[in-house]
Amino acid sequence: MSNQSSRVGRERILEVAEQLFTEHGYQGVSIRKIADACGVTNAALYYHFDNKEALFTEVIKQHAARLGARMRQAGQSQGSYQERVGNMALEYMALTSNRRSLFYLLRHKAKDLSNEKTRDRFGHVFSNMLGPIEEVLQEAIAAGELKQLPETYSGTSILLGMLHGVGRYHKVRSQADLTEEDVRLIVDLFWNGMRVREE
Amino acid sequence: MSNQSSRVGRERILEVAEQLFTEHGYQGVSIRKIADACGVTNAALYYHFDNKEALFTEVIKQHAARLGARMRQAGQSQGSYQERVGNMALEYMALTSNRRSLFYLLRHKAKDLSNEKTRDRFGHVFSNMLGPIEEVLQEAIAAGELKQLPETYSGTSILLGMLHGVGRYHKVRSQADLTEEDVRLIVDLFWNGMRVREE
Repeated sequence: MSNQSSRVGRERILEVAEQLFTEHGYQGVSIRKIADACGVTNAALYYHFDNKEALFTEVIKQHAARLGARMRQAGQSQGSYQERVGNMALEYMALTSNRRSLFYLLRHKAKDLSNEKTRDRFGHVFSNMLGPIEEVLQEAIAAGELKQLPETYSGTSILLGMLHGVGRYHKVRSQADLTEEDVRLIVDLFWNGMRVREE
Repeated sequence: MSNQSSRVGRERILEVAEQLFTEHGYQGVSIRKIADACGVTNAALYYHFDNKEALFTEVIKQHAARLGARMRQAGQSQGSYQERVGNMALEYMALTSNRRSLFYLLRHKAKDLSNEKTRDRFGHVFSNMLGPIEEVLQEAIAAGELKQLPETYSGTSILLGMLHGVGRYHKVRSQADLTEEDVRLIVDLFWNGMRVREE
């Protein structure tokens, strides 16, 4: 097998594996199932990956990188820091609520995957998505627009907490997801607080 | 059995049952176990409660009322709205992190109890604790100090989201619970936002 064709094979396997894991969960997918879907032998899969777990780890790694890139892109738009963070919050909501994504599986079907390594992997995907938000917040802090928080804090975790808090409340009351208007309002509250000001 | 003595018996049963449920979970406690711990017969328990589930429901109801009363009391202190909400947030953290409370069991051992009724019951306890916070926030809105939010929002859910967001982040990084200083800072961010202002 030439280097060229084995690289192509590897990408194709990862693509097919991600789709299968997302649909059927970790337990519901075997090496054989992936090989069949790729139209190759088990041996061809084992040429690239030691075992199912190694393949799964690589699938997650690529997924994490892709989500991170999309978040970063959302934050690179023109506009104020608040607008940029708003755009990233919207992208975050879109990416995490996509029921056909591996992220969704990792988050909501933890039972299927539950072990320490999976939690670590999920943490890895998560921080890949949140890193870009934290970077823009740090820029805004460095520019003197936002307050410097104590070292053990992350502005991102506060903002996401607000989003999830409101999101859960909406879900319970009306089964509705957050709209763009909701997300912009929450980012505004994060920026400016609940207090009424005469400005 | 006189009305007087049956009322006393009822309170005692509820007290013992709460302790046992908290320690052993719903599945781990039988009517017989409760009766034994009270030093009465099973029949004496059935005189007051139709079955284990009815007893458990009553235990939760009393627990909810007690937690609600403690929250309300924490919010009745003198001081600004922000201080009062801060006091309630602290009380909330104390009550919910107490590993020996039934609330903790309901929240973290949902597997033991998982069914729709239990989720409803947990929701009931939860809203009993949050109602008093929302009331003070509504007072502050009526007084013109805080912004009026859209009807589908609850300020409390935003504030708790912030607390939980920071709390999770601390836990992951340092295994530490939030301190009083943390809670006051978060309430301040809720009130005033992240933006730096010249005041």
